[in-house]
Amino acid sequence: MAPFVLTSVLLSLVAVYLVSKLGGEVSKRLGLPPVLGELVGGVVVGVSALHFLVFPEAGATASDSLLMGILQVLGNLDNESIQHIFQSQSEVVSVLAELGVIILLFEIGLESDLRELGKVGYQAAIVAVVGVVAPFALGTAGLVLLFHTPVIPAIFAGAALTATSIGITSKVLSELGYLKSTEGQIIVGAAVMDDVLGIIVLAVVASLAKTGEIDLLNVLYLILSASGFLIGAILLGKFFNSSFVAIAEKLQTRGALLIPAFTFALVMAVIANLIHLEAILGAFAAGLVLDETDKRKELDQQVMPIADILVPIFFVTVGAKADLGVLNPAIPENREGLIIAAFLITVAIVGKVITGWTVFGQPNINRLAIGVGMIPRGEVGLVFAGIGSASGVLDKPLEAAIIVMVILTTFLAPPLLQFALKRNENATPPDDGGSPIGLDSVPPTELVAIKD
Amino acid sequence: MAPFVLTSVLLSLVAVYLVSKLGGEVSKRLGLPPVLGELVGGVVVGVSALHFLVFPEAGATASDSLLMGILQVLGNLDNESIQHIFQSQSEVVSVLAELGVIILLFEIGLESDLRELGKVGYQAAIVAVVGVVAPFALGTAGLVLLFHTPVIPAIFAGAALTATSIGITSKVLSELGYLKSTEGQIIVGAAVMDDVLGIIVLAVVASLAKTGEIDLLNVLYLILSASGFLIGAILLGKFFNSSFVAIAEKLQTRGALLIPAFTFALVMAVIANLIHLEAILGAFAAGLVLDETDKRKELDQQVMPIADILVPIFFVTVGAKADLGVLNPAIPENREGLIIAAFLITVAIVGKVITGWTVFGQPNINRLAIGVGMIPRGEVGLVFAGIGSASGVLDKPLEAAIIVMVILTTFLAPPLLQFALKRNENATPPDDGGSPIGLDSVPPTELVAIKD
Repeated sequence: MAPFVLTSVLLSLVAVYLVSKLGGEVSKRLGLPPVLGELVGGVVVGVSALHFLVFPEAGATASDSLLMGILQVLGNLDNESIQHIFQSQSEVVSVLAELGVIILLFEIGLESDLRELGKVGYQAAIVAVVGVVAPFALGTAGLVLLFHTPVIPAIFAGAALTATSIGITSKVLSELGYLKSTEGQIIVGAAVMDDVLGIIVLAVVASLAKTGEIDLLNVLYLILSASGFLIGAILLGKFFNSSFVAIAEKLQTRGALLIPAFTFALVMAVIANLIHLEAILGAFAAGLVLDETDKRKELDQQVMPIADILVPIFFVTVGAKADLGVLNPAIPENREGLIIAAFLITVAIVGKVITGWTVFGQPNINRLAIGVGMIPRGEVGLVFAGIGSASGVLDKPLEAAIIVMVILTTFLAPPLLQFALKRNENATPPDDGGSPIGLDSVPPTELVAIKD
Repeated sequence: MAPFVLTSVLLSLVAVYLVSKLGGEVSKRLGLPPVLGELVGGVVVGVSALHFLVFPEAGATASDSLLMGILQVLGNLDNESIQHIFQSQSEVVSVLAELGVIILLFEIGLESDLRELGKVGYQAAIVAVVGVVAPFALGTAGLVLLFHTPVIPAIFAGAALTATSIGITSKVLSELGYLKSTEGQIIVGAAVMDDVLGIIVLAVVASLAKTGEIDLLNVLYLILSASGFLIGAILLGKFFNSSFVAIAEKLQTRGALLIPAFTFALVMAVIANLIHLEAILGAFAAGLVLDETDKRKELDQQVMPIADILVPIFFVTVGAKADLGVLNPAIPENREGLIIAAFLITVAIVGKVITGWTVFGQPNINRLAIGVGMIPRGEVGLVFAGIGSASGVLDKPLEAAIIVMVILTTFLAPPLLQFALKRNENATPPDDGGSPIGLDSVPPTELVAIKD
């Protein structure tokens, strides 16, 4: 390892913690979800403002990075070595961010209840399917009819509209203490299925963009492997549960409970990854399975500090990578994109909000909150934009429009979801003290310490 | 980030946790310190055996890595992309290992008591100085007189003999519950000072190897900056303590206590790094400072799970990088090195063990344990060997001899230290339940949960 790689990672982490804590606290005091502040904090250090934390995927080089500039002066480094450090730092921070969202979904899985999730399974499935079909159809048709976009790029943009960021939506739910409410469980269930559907949609449009045809075999493979994985994880989980507790009780060295649990989450993440699903789905499934054990509470408490240090890296990175420059109407070439974006955003919101009214058999449910909970496109939407851009299918204005849509839905969703949840007091009451994730102001270990 | 980088890191972590838990548990059941098992687990997956986890610093390429071979088959990847993944995976795992030893030293700092450490400061200083001078003088003189080694390589080998691995020795102390004993505090204090002295020695021999002269200005700068840093940290700490508690109490979002503490540790690590000290010294100083606050216990409890998942990465990596091939006497070219190694090991042990008898004013102290606690050379010794090898000063047999010395002192020290501590019951009794690090079989959160 080059000597300054560690320094650059440590400095990146310091920046992440400073802006995420500052942003989170300000957001909280403004009555908004803390995660919004973490995203905004990321924007402040990222490509849109300070350029302290930038990433090579978006075309940045070491000379675009304020952090690298500082290191170059401090360490008296030449351009070649700083370029190498920049690459390594970006890779390490990106992996840490991925570990962050993996641990977040593991924690969300631990907080979710498999039986509760099962009860709302059908409703969640309908929400997910409508939330994919409606924005896709509306978006694609609208672009072709209103903007005379060619069919293939229009399909691509429509596909980008289908995504839901499970990370952002579940984080807001847990921050507000609504994760275990019926609405919360429907949203989480639908977001998970949406993630699977999104991967299938992505595979379809990617092969369409590459070859002009749909690779039906691949689609079938994805559907089968995804369903197989989720069902398999839950069935295997029933069996693994008891062996997990037996293993944890036999171990005599430190981390007796945490290490087997964490290893299980990582193994599930790897399996999901290898069958072309997202790693976070594996971690979520692992959390769901371990939630069934009687070690749940203790495990929750040990996972929390790890989530506390890793999850902010994910949200700050999402913010840092969002280039708000495309939002500036003063730049003439942005204008065409912004008009398309206005259309895409309308579809993005309407196409998801209506899903709340597809929920049957729950007369008193907060339908608006469910629909709003599906709005944020987050990192999944950016993946679509990235693949579209790389394949050359999207022209500049359409690509910019997709990015604007992703950014705005991501940043608007946390306050909108909070508004929707708090406005309608017909909703199931928020979680009680049983959920450590919900207790934002007082960490449970502090509660325990007080009881002690 | 290339798509398979995350998979490769996740698989590396799974391997790390499997072998470290397995090794630790077996070691514990054999009555040996768990960390020895983690090191041996690292050897099993590393360059000496399975080649699952290998690192490019030692000259390995992707084709030497079993993990990369597996990934190449699973992902159907070409040689160029697998080489890129290998580089990224090695960088990420190395940084995670560094974060592991940083958090370990932060935890050791939190467990250490500044006042207790101050009480044994003089004794620790003498142990550190004798532990540097004796092995250096004996080793250099012996190589020149007995083996007719030229002076500069002999000085280099002598310098490699001065190191003490604070990570390994403090981990064993905490595992056995002796960290807070007088012996434990003398060893930790001396190991910290030894680290500072080691860096100065390293700077001297490196400039000697490069230019044939000693850069006195640089040496003076290092001595001043090191003393300035440690004294400054402690003075600033007194002031930071109260502001730290005030900040933590004002924060309302998750990680209110942990994130400011962790950020402080990282900032201190960066500062240490930038003034050419080791990052771990900064983390240790940060831990010492925060140990003075009344949030100590709570912080301890939250740092523990983070240490549980990061620290094993460090020890497994140390084991994985140790090439035991140089120990094989069946290979003729190893023999000359092994004879020199036998001499170096004798000096390495004798030169450190005698330091126990320099401790004054403590009639009932376990002198053998203190000396033995200074034996492991660990990663610091390997750094010397690496720099010597890179500068071309060392011939093959001498380089191999240094590596053998480092490996054997590292692997022998944990069982020897346990033997020395348990044999002599004159020693201060081991830590009571106050030290969570010492409680190996029952994690404190489990205790809390039972009380609940």
